Amino acid sequence: MKTQINLKEKNKSYTVYIDELDKITLKGSVAIVTNQTVGGLWLKEILGLLECDKLSIISIPDGEEYKNFETLNQILEQLFIAKLDRSSTLIALGGGVVSDITGFAASIYERGIKFINIPTTLLAQVDASVGGKTGINNKFGKNLVGAFYQPEAVYCQSKFLSTLPKREFSAGVAEAIKMAITFDKEFFNFFVQNDLKSSEEIAKVISKCVQIKADVVSKDEKERGIRAVLNYGHTFAHVIENETKYTKFLHGEAVAIGINMANHLALKLNLLSLDELNLIKQTLVKFSLPTHYKIKDCEHFYNAFFLDKKSEQSKIKFILPDGIGKFCVKDDVDKDIVMSVLEEFR
Amino acid sequence: MKTQINLKEKNKSYTVYIDELDKITLKGSVAIVTNQTVGGLWLKEILGLLECDKLSIISIPDGEEYKNFETLNQILEQLFIAKLDRSSTLIALGGGVVSDITGFAASIYERGIKFINIPTTLLAQVDASVGGKTGINNKFGKNLVGAFYQPEAVYCQSKFLSTLPKREFSAGVAEAIKMAITFDKEFFNFFVQNDLKSSEEIAKVISKCVQIKADVVSKDEKERGIRAVLNYGHTFAHVIENETKYTKFLHGEAVAIGINMANHLALKLNLLSLDELNLIKQTLVKFSLPTHYKIKDCEHFYNAFFLDKKSEQSKIKFILPDGIGKFCVKDDVDKDIVMSVLEEFR
Repeated sequence: MKTQINLKEKNKSYTVYIDELDKITLKGSVAIVTNQTVGGLWLKEILGLLECDKLSIISIPDGEEYKNFETLNQILEQLFIAKLDRSSTLIALGGGVVSDITGFAASIYERGIKFINIPTTLLAQVDASVGGKTGINNKFGKNLVGAFYQPEAVYCQSKFLSTLPKREFSAGVAEAIKMAITFDKEFFNFFVQNDLKSSEEIAKVISKCVQIKADVVSKDEKERGIRAVLNYGHTFAHVIENETKYTKFLHGEAVAIGINMANHLALKLNLLSLDELNLIKQTLVKFSLPTHYKIKDCEHFYNAFFLDKKSEQSKIKFILPDGIGKFCVKDDVDKDIVMSVLEEFR
Repeated sequence: MKTQINLKEKNKSYTVYIDELDKITLKGSVAIVTNQTVGGLWLKEILGLLECDKLSIISIPDGEEYKNFETLNQILEQLFIAKLDRSSTLIALGGGVVSDITGFAASIYERGIKFINIPTTLLAQVDASVGGKTGINNKFGKNLVGAFYQPEAVYCQSKFLSTLPKREFSAGVAEAIKMAITFDKEFFNFFVQNDLKSSEEIAKVISKCVQIKADVVSKDEKERGIRAVLNYGHTFAHVIENETKYTKFLHGEAVAIGINMANHLALKLNLLSLDELNLIKQTLVKFSLPTHYKIKDCEHFYNAFFLDKKSEQSKIKFILPDGIGKFCVKDDVDKDIVMSVLEEFR
């Protein structure tokens, strides 16, 4: 399977290949950025498929806490030592941390070199594989420094998921369910009816998510409009992740909680029925995802929304389901209503 | 006077205004990045012309040695503290260091916010004002990390040059002469016949350079082809700057020497006559520019070419004049010939 990602600038368009990786042939120098864990599991397989003039391997520490300026600088230094030039290609082999930081490094190394993404987690395959968002975290928050930079190609292999810890697999399912709720009721029912144990089912989920995201991104590459819809659940999730310093929950787990919180707000605004809210919650739980987070200080939680980069000036933009399969954007929700939802999680 | 910079992506096109700055009205938060020196001289004037909702001033240390990761990080931190968001604008008020690092910060802050450039040196006005090159230096060389990022607008004020040290003014003239030699014989003669003492003459030089560069950049935004022509003199200059650790020569001064070195190579290849070489040299000298650099170790100097980011793989691409007013690109010059030119500067 493959999906073409069409962007307004034709020369930036590229293809996402799903379970279609036979050979990668590249001219010039290539550097593969991976981490110890993924490298140990899958690097050998990739090296067997790769043909290039000169190769370097860069291994970075495994974990969201290393997606920072320091690691970025280390990658860049190793690229300079390996004398990569403008005809070179950077390959990311790993989860979202590896692809985000590698894509960003590719975008600023000598003002931009080629970038190929091989995501090895379900989350990275369904989410980070399309959209061109690259970046790093800093003490002010997540992904606050980065670039929009499109890869040359993306290869999603469902077999890579066979070595993925169950918790991380579930975290990826959360992002997939997020897309289903906001865009496609039938796709949501797929999660209600299936348990994603077979590789065919998994490939179908990846493919469907890539198509949905491709469609959104084609319309809005730089996230000025409709692309913000992909942030459903994320406004809450980012605060949770910040409060727990990215240690307690995986990103997808925080998103699952954020989806449930957003749904409680949608219920209050009569956008979602209690039955729909419960069905979504049960489906998240079925895939071993958390739906609750104990808020210590609601006022503090509320104020933290404004640190989120997606909120402009003093308005919070909530992406909410409008029934299952459709979305709406609300930027005029009274603080009282939001606070009453937060109180439910106290 | 104003010149429209047309780029392939229409929404990236912008205007360079020369001596046409009455008022800047901006929505949302604005941060001005400047240095102590320029801030002391011209910030007050700019503040009088600026209308915006919220303003921060960020002052960075003055000097090429501060165009690095550390200063970039400091700028970004201050932007986060000032809570700039995606609707905000970053204004660079200063020379090339300020505009390069500020443009780069604008490109990666929350994956890109608006950028306005107010260059205050002749060099920055004739060169850095057009092209969208932003970036920082590191221990491997100059401008090795950065992005192509276009400003919303550029304002060149010739009055800002009244406080510019004479040496820096001359350095700017070097880049202007560089463009004249490669693109426009008549424009080169303007430097032979005039001394650039009047603001009309200066405005004419800025305008002509902006037009030439705009024309080149429109054809080749990402420097894959013809844009490399603007590197005439720079292949040599970068090595000189590296060897002298950016302390002995201003960039334009190194370019003046680089032009003369390139011309000696052009003479050897029968692309330039001795009379032409001498006329260019005299003109550079007339504007108080250096044309000589004592090379200690020619082999070392030669090898340093390959660290320059514009040379791909093991070919050095020399941009040479083809008479005065035209250029050619040579990537097959024998090492012996290059070495014999370097020997002349030993």
